[in-house]
Amino acid sequence: MDTLVHNVWIITMDNSEKRIPFHGYLSILDGRIHDIDSGKPDQSLIDEAKEVIDGGGKWLMPGLVNTHGHLGSSLLRGHGDDLKLVTWLKTVMWPNEAKFDHDLVQTAAELAMMEMISSGTTTFLDMYHLAMPELAQMVQEKGLRAVLCRGMIAFGTESEQDEKIREAVSLADSYHNAADGRIRVMMSPHAPYTCPPDFYLKAAEQAMNHQLMLHTHISESPGEVDEHLRKYGMRPVEHMHRLGLLNDEVLLAHAVHLTDEELSMLKETNTAVSHNPMSNLKLGSGIARVPEMNRQGIRVSLGTDSTASNNNLDLFEEMRFAALIHKGVNHNPESTDAYSILRMATVDGASILGYSQTGTIRQGSDADFILINPDQPHLTPWTPERVVSHLVYAAKGSDVTDVWIRGRRQLENGFFLEFDRERILHKSNELVKYFE
Amino acid sequence: MDTLVHNVWIITMDNSEKRIPFHGYLSILDGRIHDIDSGKPDQSLIDEAKEVIDGGGKWLMPGLVNTHGHLGSSLLRGHGDDLKLVTWLKTVMWPNEAKFDHDLVQTAAELAMMEMISSGTTTFLDMYHLAMPELAQMVQEKGLRAVLCRGMIAFGTESEQDEKIREAVSLADSYHNAADGRIRVMMSPHAPYTCPPDFYLKAAEQAMNHQLMLHTHISESPGEVDEHLRKYGMRPVEHMHRLGLLNDEVLLAHAVHLTDEELSMLKETNTAVSHNPMSNLKLGSGIARVPEMNRQGIRVSLGTDSTASNNNLDLFEEMRFAALIHKGVNHNPESTDAYSILRMATVDGASILGYSQTGTIRQGSDADFILINPDQPHLTPWTPERVVSHLVYAAKGSDVTDVWIRGRRQLENGFFLEFDRERILHKSNELVKYFE
Ligand SMILES: [Zn+2]
Ligand SMILES: [Zn+2]
Repeated sequence: MDTLVHNVWIITMDNSEKRIPFHGYLSILDGRIHDIDSGKPDQSLIDEAKEVIDGGGKWLMPGLVNTHGHLGSSLLRGHGDDLKLVTWLKTVMWPNEAKFDHDLVQTAAELAMMEMISSGTTTFLDMYHLAMPELAQMVQEKGLRAVLCRGMIAFGTESEQDEKIREAVSLADSYHNAADGRIRVMMSPHAPYTCPPDFYLKAAEQAMNHQLMLHTHISESPGEVDEHLRKYGMRPVEHMHRLGLLNDEVLLAHAVHLTDEELSMLKETNTAVSHNPMSNLKLGSGIARVPEMNRQGIRVSLGTDSTASNNNLDLFEEMRFAALIHKGVNHNPESTDAYSILRMATVDGASILGYSQTGTIRQGSDADFILINPDQPHLTPWTPERVVSHLVYAAKGSDVTDVWIRGRRQLENGFFLEFDRERILHKSNELVKYFE
Repeated sequence: MDTLVHNVWIITMDNSEKRIPFHGYLSILDGRIHDIDSGKPDQSLIDEAKEVIDGGGKWLMPGLVNTHGHLGSSLLRGHGDDLKLVTWLKTVMWPNEAKFDHDLVQTAAELAMMEMISSGTTTFLDMYHLAMPELAQMVQEKGLRAVLCRGMIAFGTESEQDEKIREAVSLADSYHNAADGRIRVMMSPHAPYTCPPDFYLKAAEQAMNHQLMLHTHISESPGEVDEHLRKYGMRPVEHMHRLGLLNDEVLLAHAVHLTDEELSMLKETNTAVSHNPMSNLKLGSGIARVPEMNRQGIRVSLGTDSTASNNNLDLFEEMRFAALIHKGVNHNPESTDAYSILRMATVDGASILGYSQTGTIRQGSDADFILINPDQPHLTPWTPERVVSHLVYAAKGSDVTDVWIRGRRQLENGFFLEFDRERILHKSNELVKYFE
């Protein structure tokens, strides 16, 4: 055995009947979870292990799964807030992004990965248009787990559009299912308001040819839906459905403004959703119909979107918003429950991204897990029965002390093992001095 | 000089024209801010100071102000979630609170104070019905700043009601303006659904006689408003107005369900509001009309309510919710802005509680301030122009490293100086073993 972690309270997320953590231990062999059991490990297990870690009574749970983001724009955090979507895109996002080079985008991505790891995220999705092969290389070398999408805006000529699709396919050829299956690639037309229907069809065809999932933004703001209706006489999700583009290999980011009929289309086709509550609130987009999605059994996961519209990548915060806002707007505290929210951020997110080997603590799964330090005022008092509540309603990303991804330790007592923290923070601060 | 803190970026909250922090220093004399200036302190200042602290480039800002809470019920954190208000009150809150003794309430209060201090709160309001004199004693000895309200539910006989008012008056006699003005006392009828109009009138009379402010819950849930309408033919705020109970010495917690007319009444009478977005969301109560209050110039502050309905006391989270939810529900990112939210949590909160000497960094004010460590992935990159945005949209309570209240250091690099951390956390965990 490679590593034995004992004296921890384990939340498996593997069985909805067993929501209360048990005190026990877990061992890792070849990047996978080998044993899990309650109580103390036998002396023989301890002797066999190359490394023995006393968890000190911390909580051990699956790493969190962030199903929507844009790492490359991380340096825009706080550069333009409290603006209308179009103003924000035209005055903050696009003019700055136009000046980004690969070096800046890689630094931004490293910064974002550090933020995610230190707050307990072990799987993330990134949709970006620059330096994706470089990012794939970094994910592979550092031992991370990520879904990489070459985001495609189809404003250009047909040959420019085709070139983007070629880049996306080439990324998939090189990296889909690479790195022991840690890396997956999706085809990613940006949004119906930046890509015409023909482009979606082309992208979907390539996705099918290369057995890739399709990921896109959709129905984020009321204005976007109105414009789509004017242009095509249909709402965006309805339109995708008519084009035959909805199926269980499709992940829609936002999906805020859906009619009952559109919800039925998602249910019928088993299409998945990435719910991004904080970004949707911040940009004034609205609030997705998540309780209704849950009632209908539509698959929902959680995403942060980028730090330019959030402004952080802490999935504990995203869980908190997802858990609270629907109760408030629906005047119903039963609209959501803590355990379902925790599922969205772990097992459901993993499954939606197409990973079967992560998202739960289960024998044979990849060893993607985190430790949380409950010995803090804001997590006190606690009993095993209160742990799920505390994770959703009280914990912070900063409570995460240790992170493993496929058996490789990424964070040890808050210290990064694969990132040069000081260099990346310093360089990030230097780079923004040249922003407008 | 007692203490000199230099090499810090200072956010004064004292002048809306100057929102960008400056690099400088601050000194403390006899609990008050003596000098503030940009640049480096002269050698003479350094020589004069009994204690010199290099802030290491951290951000220095006024301590946060929490204008509504119930410390005594802190041990109920996570004990009952996702329940309808009445179910929650009848099955979680009241049966447990009925069994609370003074020892438990004091431990709960200590736990809550530790959580607040460690997340940057230097002023809090507490409304509770047990052990208030003991709490006042603790606040005095530990050097904290608090508004203490003996919360009164008037379900009992008239003599029981009078006894509660006597207790509240006695608390005021002993502690109002005590401890160098750090302690203030308010008269606090619990809510219109637990106190009849006559009781409000009695409480208000005593408040006037003893020059105390009045603090009460009001119009929290739609059900409460409906019931009030049925019973009295008026809405709760309207009713208070007709009784002559609204004025600039009144602080209303929640104030979620208000008509345009009721908003005008608040404006006209200069009545203040404690906005508690997380608690209002969690209990399914709804979302207060804060952007409209801001537009009209109604005074608004921020409160957490108790950990039984939040479930944490981190005002950075409360700011984040206050900053984001109104944009989302109003489909307008301009509904709120970061600086206004930061004002609510500092200078506006302090002024609403009746403190003139805290809430800003200003020469002569009490030295209530905090340090925030920006050297972290989730606060990177930063420039002086982005600090206000980061405080509202990205910072966490755990980023606070140091806290001073009236010149006395409460937190030093994350370590409590006035609390026995281990004892309180341990005792809190022990006490809940006897809960049902
Ligand atoms: Zn996005
Ligand atoms: Zn309250």
